Amino acid sequence: MLDLIEELWFLKRDIVSDDFDRALYRLAGEVPNMKIHQYPTGEPCWTWRIPEKWTCHEAYLETLDGRRLIDYGDNPLHVVSYSLPYEGVVTRQELMEHLHVHPRMPDAIPFVFKYYDRDWGLCASQTLRDSLNEERYRVVIRSDFKPGTLKVGEVVVQGESQKTFVIVAHLCHPAMVNDDLSGVVVGLGAAKALLAGSQPYYTYRFLILPETIGSVAYLSHNEALIPDMVGGLFLEMLGNDQPHALQGSYMPSSQADRCLVSALGVLDPDSYCSPYRQVINNDERQFNAPGVRIPMLSLSRVERRSSPTWPYPEYHSSLDTPAIVTQERLEASKGIVLELIRSWERNQYVVNKFKGEIFCSGHGIWIDYRTNPEGHRRLFEIMERCDGEHSVADIAVELNIPFQAVWEVVEKLHSKDL
Amino acid sequence: MLDLIEELWFLKRDIVSDDFDRALYRLAGEVPNMKIHQYPTGEPCWTWRIPEKWTCHEAYLETLDGRRLIDYGDNPLHVVSYSLPYEGVVTRQELMEHLHVHPRMPDAIPFVFKYYDRDWGLCASQTLRDSLNEERYRVVIRSDFKPGTLKVGEVVVQGESQKTFVIVAHLCHPAMVNDDLSGVVVGLGAAKALLAGSQPYYTYRFLILPETIGSVAYLSHNEALIPDMVGGLFLEMLGNDQPHALQGSYMPSSQADRCLVSALGVLDPDSYCSPYRQVINNDERQFNAPGVRIPMLSLSRVERRSSPTWPYPEYHSSLDTPAIVTQERLEASKGIVLELIRSWERNQYVVNKFKGEIFCSGHGIWIDYRTNPEGHRRLFEIMERCDGEHSVADIAVELNIPFQAVWEVVEKLHSKDL
Amino acid sequence: MLDLIEELWFLKRDIVSDDFDRALYRLAGEVPNMKIHQYPTGEPCWTWRIPEKWTCHEAYLETLDGRRLIDYGDNPLHVVSYSLPYEGVVTRQELMEHLHVHPRMPDAIPFVFKYYDRDWGLCASQTLRDSLNEERYRVVIRSDFKPGTLKVGEVVVQGESQKTFVIVAHLCHPAMVNDDLSGVVVGLGAAKALLAGSQPYYTYRFLILPETIGSVAYLSHNEALIPDMVGGLFLEMLGNDQPHALQGSYMPSSQADRCLVSALGVLDPDSYCSPYRQVINNDERQFNAPGVRIPMLSLSRVERRSSPTWPYPEYHSSLDTPAIVTQERLEASKGIVLELIRSWERNQYVVNKFKGEIFCSGHGIWIDYRTNPEGHRRLFEIMERCDGEHSVADIAVELNIPFQAVWEVVEKLHSKDL
Repeated sequence: MLDLIEELWFLKRDIVSDDFDRALYRLAGEVPNMKIHQYPTGEPCWTWRIPEKWTCHEAYLETLDGRRLIDYGDNPLHVVSYSLPYEGVVTRQELMEHLHVHPRMPDAIPFVFKYYDRDWGLCASQTLRDSLNEERYRVVIRSDFKPGTLKVGEVVVQGESQKTFVIVAHLCHPAMVNDDLSGVVVGLGAAKALLAGSQPYYTYRFLILPETIGSVAYLSHNEALIPDMVGGLFLEMLGNDQPHALQGSYMPSSQADRCLVSALGVLDPDSYCSPYRQVINNDERQFNAPGVRIPMLSLSRVERRSSPTWPYPEYHSSLDTPAIVTQERLEASKGIVLELIRSWERNQYVVNKFKGEIFCSGHGIWIDYRTNPEGHRRLFEIMERCDGEHSVADIAVELNIPFQAVWEVVEKLHSKDL
Repeated sequence: MLDLIEELWFLKRDIVSDDFDRALYRLAGEVPNMKIHQYPTGEPCWTWRIPEKWTCHEAYLETLDGRRLIDYGDNPLHVVSYSLPYEGVVTRQELMEHLHVHPRMPDAIPFVFKYYDRDWGLCASQTLRDSLNEERYRVVIRSDFKPGTLKVGEVVVQGESQKTFVIVAHLCHPAMVNDDLSGVVVGLGAAKALLAGSQPYYTYRFLILPETIGSVAYLSHNEALIPDMVGGLFLEMLGNDQPHALQGSYMPSSQADRCLVSALGVLDPDSYCSPYRQVINNDERQFNAPGVRIPMLSLSRVERRSSPTWPYPEYHSSLDTPAIVTQERLEASKGIVLELIRSWERNQYVVNKFKGEIFCSGHGIWIDYRTNPEGHRRLFEIMERCDGEHSVADIAVELNIPFQAVWEVVEKLHSKDL
Repeated sequence: MLDLIEELWFLKRDIVSDDFDRALYRLAGEVPNMKIHQYPTGEPCWTWRIPEKWTCHEAYLETLDGRRLIDYGDNPLHVVSYSLPYEGVVTRQELMEHLHVHPRMPDAIPFVFKYYDRDWGLCASQTLRDSLNEERYRVVIRSDFKPGTLKVGEVVVQGESQKTFVIVAHLCHPAMVNDDLSGVVVGLGAAKALLAGSQPYYTYRFLILPETIGSVAYLSHNEALIPDMVGGLFLEMLGNDQPHALQGSYMPSSQADRCLVSALGVLDPDSYCSPYRQVINNDERQFNAPGVRIPMLSLSRVERRSSPTWPYPEYHSSLDTPAIVTQERLEASKGIVLELIRSWERNQYVVNKFKGEIFCSGHGIWIDYRTNPEGHRRLFEIMERCDGEHSVADIAVELNIPFQAVWEVVEKLHSKDL
């Protein structure tokens, strides 16, 4: 996955842009069946409209004697995404109102975007900004806005059921890696693994899209699919050195929430779970929103909210480069996504064929309370909830034990045809 | 409102009595459309019956040598309401068994009533009682019980809907002001304001009646109206110098409870809310009772339950006079009643026309999280609950914020036709 | 009841055995209508099968020179229940693997059973075991396994309704008294009292059976009765010197749980209640299990779980003899069972004929708040919940007061036809 990141990370993947398309088509080459949805500029999407394609041909800041201080060619982050074009000489004070810096890291260029509330703008390090002591500067931003199409890539893994689990990652953060390319490659990796396996029970839809407007565009043009979408997971920030954070959906008692939350602890003992909107906000908002209400969780590697460097130190800056992600961590996250999916596949309502308590010793599942009182107690606690009205996740949540521990017992009962 | 109080307070407004009728007819003159319901003595009202009209023509306590110690003509409270007639000479000990005093205030005459479990009785100050050192006294109570009619005044403000909000105050406390005339004049003032405004959505019924039996009489004779009565508010003790106390109904999750409770804090920052029966008991009991179950709250100015002078020092005594109420406080309470009604009118289920999250910047409702993170968060928290299944009050209660704050956002969305 | 105990306690009442049958037929003689259900060896019962009848004809442990150390004739507990037969000379070490002792009491023979996971085994006191210093011993266990029938005794007290309350006790603990004969005689005593009284509203079924397999056998052969079984109580350990412990069912909000739990405190002020599986596990497990789900509680005299001698010092040992139970305590427990049944009979949904609040003084049920504020408050708290949607137990639980206190008020209203 790191190779794909190396190849694509520095592209200017603004929300509707040629480089976004280049990256998406390159990713499409990784799987046999990615469908690319296109939504033209101006198309209404519920309360939104698709914006124009934005291109920045050239941009720089110079002293009046031609010394170049900032050049878009060096780093796409030097220009505010969707900046208006501008050419002219400005006073230092005027410049300062349009020159964005990072609030915490003096040597980083910040990521700034003004998709709808537009202005012209440049970004630079605090260090560079502090060094500006001339009275006037020349600004050149040769950007334009043209009709184009917003694109959403979709990989479908058809299951036995039309009931669908949606996995989403966004691709629109130019020249950055952990946020957001890491989520894209982990998601795509999981999709490839699923395609290579036997047919799952649920159908899975993997979506790669520009943040927010991409989700709104897709959902508003696929309303008929929404009722079948019974759960989802948003992926992002999965290469950096932090524990996994699972953010619950707007509907914390949904089967998706219960299942994934009860399964995570075993998969990463350092992980933690937080309620909706308490880890970080992304596309899961559109899926959880009124009129949609798909319980979509999110998985990321994010510092605790109280940390001064939340969500991670290099967030939304030019320091979010391949240097802060590792193949090992990406693989670990992919493994966790696949294990969460495995639990989700196993999360059925446990229908008892038996009545009364099971004749455990007669079926070889007896755990002696004299030698293993805890195991004995748990066996009975689980068995007595196998009544057709509890899912595996319901039992796990009710007993406050891992999904996997419940599954182990249920699987044993199932194998004995009980 | 204070002028009406000055005019009517000293009347002997016992539950069925000529002075009650006088006061009620005088109040009827204040509004164009008060209907006076009459229920004759003996009329069955569910498990109750209408009592006789009680009149006390004359009453006094004298020494045997004719020195008058107590005279009903000085203050109606000197005779127990619904006292049996009595004339004769009694020993001091006999007298003591029939002479009621205030447990806390030595110079106040207490308000004592024996509507159903009758006896003869006088009331006096502790000071006077302590001075009684003769062996025998002459008692004269020339009261009688005759057929009459219990009267209930009703002002209806017809709304677009038959769904009704009921506002109730009782008028039957003779020669007292804060309890109960203050609630009557505030309620009537609110009714006048509503009649003067544009047609409301809900229908409002303002009832002025004798306590308990008045409510039972009205409800038992208007059972067909009960199913439409979706909320209510009882008013009393609104002129004294205490913060507003809003007492919840028997059904604390009713829309009436949620709406009024979430709206009050903004209207009076010193106010407090307590559950059903935890502030003070009045007619709202009949409306909340089995077989009726109208969620009726109550608004009053009452000390905290733990106070030794709860509900207020002069309660049920001859010190409850115009001296302890002010026009300013009555006006403030009327304003709060009208604001609570305004919130109630606004408490609709918020049906989203939008799906997904709203394109806020595109509709001019964006709040930048960089400059106003709290406002931004709240905007989204409210928007994501606008789903046709939450009323404005539901959202306020769920987010633990004022009704008015939710309304502000909802109104903005509404004005944008979202 | 103690006479029955004296007569039957020392029988070898293993789960399917001639002495179990003897004891059961003897008990059948105490009531006019006990039905004996028989389930033959090998009969499938849901996931279980009826085991063989077990008989131990003779068993002993001897030194090689013929000194008898243990003799089954002295105490049935000397042989593991359902021990395989064995005859031969064994080394001391081999013997130790098959000679069970009590973990805590050096002079007690423990009760050990291996109904399904079989082996040969003897039991002795720790003292005896410590004295074994020879190299080899002779073991003789002349037991056999033959086809037989498991028996369940059933006494039915037919009520007006088919809705049934089940009372269960097990009889299969050989040569022990508090666990389990005490529960049997208390249950049978209660059944006799019920048969002697007027017809109850509910039907009552008293079951005497071998633990676990007896319940499974009965339930699996009477599935049609299960839907009518709306509550139940398991009885055991009712003669020893401990407070009563009422263990809730798997469904803590069932009417059976609410009623019995709210009624117990008045009947035994030293009693306590604990949730399902938190006092001690017995046949109530089969009744509460998936596919059955009858809310069955249990009543016993059991030390708190934290006690080192839980459930009571002599539990499952040869010290559980008539010496630790008294007729007085058995009578007290029977009285409590009957009082719990009386509450259960009274636990109806309280349908109000009245509307509004009741005219209390008019119906002679007024409690003056000036003389008895607590009683006044409670009267009103109860009355306002008499709405056809609360049972007596619901009101008791909601107000956290005894069942009997609610009943007193409800009975008074009922007697006034309100």
